[in-house]
Amino acid sequence: MSAANRTPVTVLGLGPMGQALARAFLAAGHPTTVWNRTASKADRLVADGAILAPTAADAALAGDLAVICVIDAGAVRSIVEQAADALRGRTLVNLTADTPERARELAAWAGEHGIDYLPGAIMTPTSSIGNEAASILYSGPEELFRRHRPALAALDASATYLGADPGRAAAHEVALLDLFWSSVSGLMHAYALARAENITAGELAPFAKGIGDLIPIMIDEFASHIDSGEYPGDESTTVSTLAGVEHVIEASEARGIDTAALTAIRASVQRVIDSGHGEDSIARLSDALRVAVPAG
Amino acid sequence: MSAANRTPVTVLGLGPMGQALARAFLAAGHPTTVWNRTASKADRLVADGAILAPTAADAALAGDLAVICVIDAGAVRSIVEQAADALRGRTLVNLTADTPERARELAAWAGEHGIDYLPGAIMTPTSSIGNEAASILYSGPEELFRRHRPALAALDASATYLGADPGRAAAHEVALLDLFWSSVSGLMHAYALARAENITAGELAPFAKGIGDLIPIMIDEFASHIDSGEYPGDESTTVSTLAGVEHVIEASEARGIDTAALTAIRASVQRVIDSGHGEDSIARLSDALRVAVPAG
Repeated sequence: MSAANRTPVTVLGLGPMGQALARAFLAAGHPTTVWNRTASKADRLVADGAILAPTAADAALAGDLAVICVIDAGAVRSIVEQAADALRGRTLVNLTADTPERARELAAWAGEHGIDYLPGAIMTPTSSIGNEAASILYSGPEELFRRHRPALAALDASATYLGADPGRAAAHEVALLDLFWSSVSGLMHAYALARAENITAGELAPFAKGIGDLIPIMIDEFASHIDSGEYPGDESTTVSTLAGVEHVIEASEARGIDTAALTAIRASVQRVIDSGHGEDSIARLSDALRVAVPAG
Repeated sequence: MSAANRTPVTVLGLGPMGQALARAFLAAGHPTTVWNRTASKADRLVADGAILAPTAADAALAGDLAVICVIDAGAVRSIVEQAADALRGRTLVNLTADTPERARELAAWAGEHGIDYLPGAIMTPTSSIGNEAASILYSGPEELFRRHRPALAALDASATYLGADPGRAAAHEVALLDLFWSSVSGLMHAYALARAENITAGELAPFAKGIGDLIPIMIDEFASHIDSGEYPGDESTTVSTLAGVEHVIEASEARGIDTAALTAIRASVQRVIDSGHGEDSIARLSDALRVAVPAG
């Protein structure tokens, strides 16, 4: 298909992810207009065929579909408020990470301003955008998702639609970010602990991948425990988890490595044991982490 | 090879892992003597051909090689002290999870008592023992490892030897447990957060596996940053990590889910930013977690 037949698109925000999105649209032949607060971030994209607009509103006017991906919800709000008139009657796809609450609030705001709003969540790194490694989740009006799917396929050909609730993509995203950042933080802690024993990160890495191979098994096994409400401890128990966590804390303290996150994990594991479930699987922890009646 | 040609082995401790070890020795044809504080745990193993000894010392006398895997180092110490005379001149393989310090202490104790001591660390679940999924790390006298490798192959045919320092297997183990339990705790937290949004664990699981697929990439990428001392933030920065962690905290608080571990993670990420490295990769976190001069 020639570029003339591709939907013109706008990309608002040119951080590492915004640049990857714009590159993918260009690579797929979409006329692509970009805007960024610091215009110089657009230099390479302009050299590759993007059009740089002087304001977010000007950029929005150039596309049928505007994709925004910036640092946080505050930045999104400030940019889309400036460009609200230009976005009226157009579609805004917000791929900025956010909470379900604010995704729903922004959907309501967009509705009041006559802007078609489709929130999404990018679950993979910048390098995945436009290739088969990409995973982007969308929720909101199904008609909007279907209408823009051909253009959005430039970013992720297997785009996932999760339903009409505009907060549902963000609800998945916060849970998945939770897993991701907890794991990455644990990895950084493991590298710190290894280094204190003169084991380089590169030496630990192959074994760390062996641990990584266990995670998908735990994902399925513990999901079945949680969804069934049965927590068999025949493979390993919460008591043995506590012993493992305590070894890590003790070894960390002896080496001057921060134990704050591990101490918090230990306290939650201890709660499972204190509630009489020490011989159950650690999947009980998911329940024990609900500590208060939800606010609001 | 007939059972008559296999080294007689002893297994001390019959928790889930001890039972798996004894089963694997039996399956490989080793005459296998077992002992457990609660003798009834041996019933199935005895039905499968194991010999139950009345004391740990009696069990130790029956094997050339005694493998111990119990709940913690205190239990190890109490059992091996009772069986010290029986173990003299024999080899003790300790597969109980522990800190490097105590692995070294127990090696010294064993040396004083004329016991050949080979500590190891089991990095995979009970279900892996005796099949190709198993991963067991050993450190200590290389001659001991070589001599007993044929028998230990019943547990893990690809047993890994890490060097003469008896603490080195435990040093790897604590770092790998750190990664494992941090990841599992994050997974349980993610399931709690998803459930508060009416997403079942089973619904989140396939997406969680997508996140799991990113971990090996992070393992290699961040290892290269740490070992080279260069932390390029072109894929994603510490500032964007902070934004992600804050979304998870905010969404958790709104749903009454414990944020203690995430708050600790946020504080360590903030330290990276406060030290002027906000635009660097989050691999800087590994340095920022070293908060004190090591004790001792």
